[in-house]
Amino acid sequence: MSEKIKIAILGLGVVGGGVYDLIKKNDLPIEVVKVFGRSKDKALQKGLPEHLWTENFDEIIKSNADVVVETLGGIDIPTKYVLTALENKKSVVTANKAMLSPNYKTILETAKNNGVSFKYEATVAGTIPVINVLENSLNANKIIKIEGILNGTANYILTKMSEEGWEYGDALKKAQDLGFAESDPTDDVEGIDTANKLSILISLTTGKYVSVKDLSPKGISGLSSKDFDEAKSQGCVIKLLGTVSFENDEMSYFVMPTYLNKEHPLASVRNEYNGILITGNASDDIMLYGKGAGAFPTASAVVSDILSITKES
Amino acid sequence: MSEKIKIAILGLGVVGGGVYDLIKKNDLPIEVVKVFGRSKDKALQKGLPEHLWTENFDEIIKSNADVVVETLGGIDIPTKYVLTALENKKSVVTANKAMLSPNYKTILETAKNNGVSFKYEATVAGTIPVINVLENSLNANKIIKIEGILNGTANYILTKMSEEGWEYGDALKKAQDLGFAESDPTDDVEGIDTANKLSILISLTTGKYVSVKDLSPKGISGLSSKDFDEAKSQGCVIKLLGTVSFENDEMSYFVMPTYLNKEHPLASVRNEYNGILITGNASDDIMLYGKGAGAFPTASAVVSDILSITKES
Repeated sequence: MSEKIKIAILGLGVVGGGVYDLIKKNDLPIEVVKVFGRSKDKALQKGLPEHLWTENFDEIIKSNADVVVETLGGIDIPTKYVLTALENKKSVVTANKAMLSPNYKTILETAKNNGVSFKYEATVAGTIPVINVLENSLNANKIIKIEGILNGTANYILTKMSEEGWEYGDALKKAQDLGFAESDPTDDVEGIDTANKLSILISLTTGKYVSVKDLSPKGISGLSSKDFDEAKSQGCVIKLLGTVSFENDEMSYFVMPTYLNKEHPLASVRNEYNGILITGNASDDIMLYGKGAGAFPTASAVVSDILSITKES
Repeated sequence: MSEKIKIAILGLGVVGGGVYDLIKKNDLPIEVVKVFGRSKDKALQKGLPEHLWTENFDEIIKSNADVVVETLGGIDIPTKYVLTALENKKSVVTANKAMLSPNYKTILETAKNNGVSFKYEATVAGTIPVINVLENSLNANKIIKIEGILNGTANYILTKMSEEGWEYGDALKKAQDLGFAESDPTDDVEGIDTANKLSILISLTTGKYVSVKDLSPKGISGLSSKDFDEAKSQGCVIKLLGTVSFENDEMSYFVMPTYLNKEHPLASVRNEYNGILITGNASDDIMLYGKGAGAFPTASAVVSDILSITKES
């Protein structure tokens, strides 16, 4: 590649910082021309040259970045930033599922109307290339079903409860100690994060928006060792699934803890891993498996999006 | 999509016939303008209009096809046809691993020199999108290791020997009865088919050609129930793996039956399914799982390649 693609990064936290580090680590043909954020000291500690730092979003728009990478977290402010960047003819890559889920249609239309790209591989299941596979590898198929273990924190807790006989509270504490779970774990354990991701997969597959509220997620905080004993006695494991299926042109969906037979391909997805089983009317079952979170695994997906924009342009 | 992409199909056997049927089944924006083959009667039984049939390859070149789909089988004749099509500015999609493995570099260079596309998703692991994922989703990574269960026939036989205690000959006969194994199963059970696929993955990942002979594949025909008892006593299963790994810039590879711990992600790939575990230096482990053969699963990969050429042009 002769010329480097120029990017600006919004937010240098776990994911944004991972993107910054990965570009250097693997000597990728990407130049970071501006970074926007709130913690200047942390950014400088990372080795960011001070002249690349800004706390003023206008400077991102005025910069010569071709691609804006949004890894801020939150909903309203990043939505505004993403739309503003697209309207200013900058392509956007995001890892922010809570931002994308309710704004999917508006954002994709804004990108199209401005002749730029919008990419979001990292919003669903981290490093797992589910968006690319649905868009490009399964485009000869009618999709019949998508079943996903889409939240690593919940899956870690369920694995410990199932395999080690731990109670919910102990497993959650261990997940927090290991850095998998936030101090407020509500979104992860109550299925809200899973629902945001399922909502994005439904938007991609059908063009229709189903809100987190309409998905009415059920979480795992009410499960006890009794439930796992019961599952085991039936040859099953319990997984928090997000599922959408299409039968006779009718869509049905749910987010809830589900019994899976031990021979089901998703039953062997353990600990903090994610897994997605996609059934197409030609491909039959395809499963994708990998890390749903973490700095480098998520950055791997973000950077593949950046590089795909280089190819298109 | 406003205009259909025009294709010619070489060979209307299991895969080529699957492509023809899938285009109709899912009403895809693809027009078959010519079919070349040897069994006219079979083609007409499929509903192919007689004027689309030819037994003269020159008519494929003279046709208005933008893409030539090669699903003939064999090596020398399809290689000649693929190169001739590319030299005549037609893009090519193939499912033929034995043809591609020794000719990878020549074919890709010929495509590049003629400004057309060459795609081969279906050559490795059927419906599993391993080529797309390596090329586009993991392009921010240095690849550390690729481990694959790449032959469904061998995996079916190993599953029956391991789980049902069958002897090799009985499991092979059942695979043949079910249509998974050819009457001459040598390529499948002796690891030659796996080696062809691994050779293609090595070419894609490194640009270097490693022949089937250099991979010196070891097959499964020498295994007996004693081997499976021994594996089980160590908490393992036996899988026929094709593996390439890169450590300290040195490449090592093998094709052979291998003990896998039961918790290894590939250990749960059973029966005729394929699975590929790819380790990147950012993504960590990603596994892809699905059907490695069969008319529609393989056609799903071929047609995704055809549609990707539409997008590029």
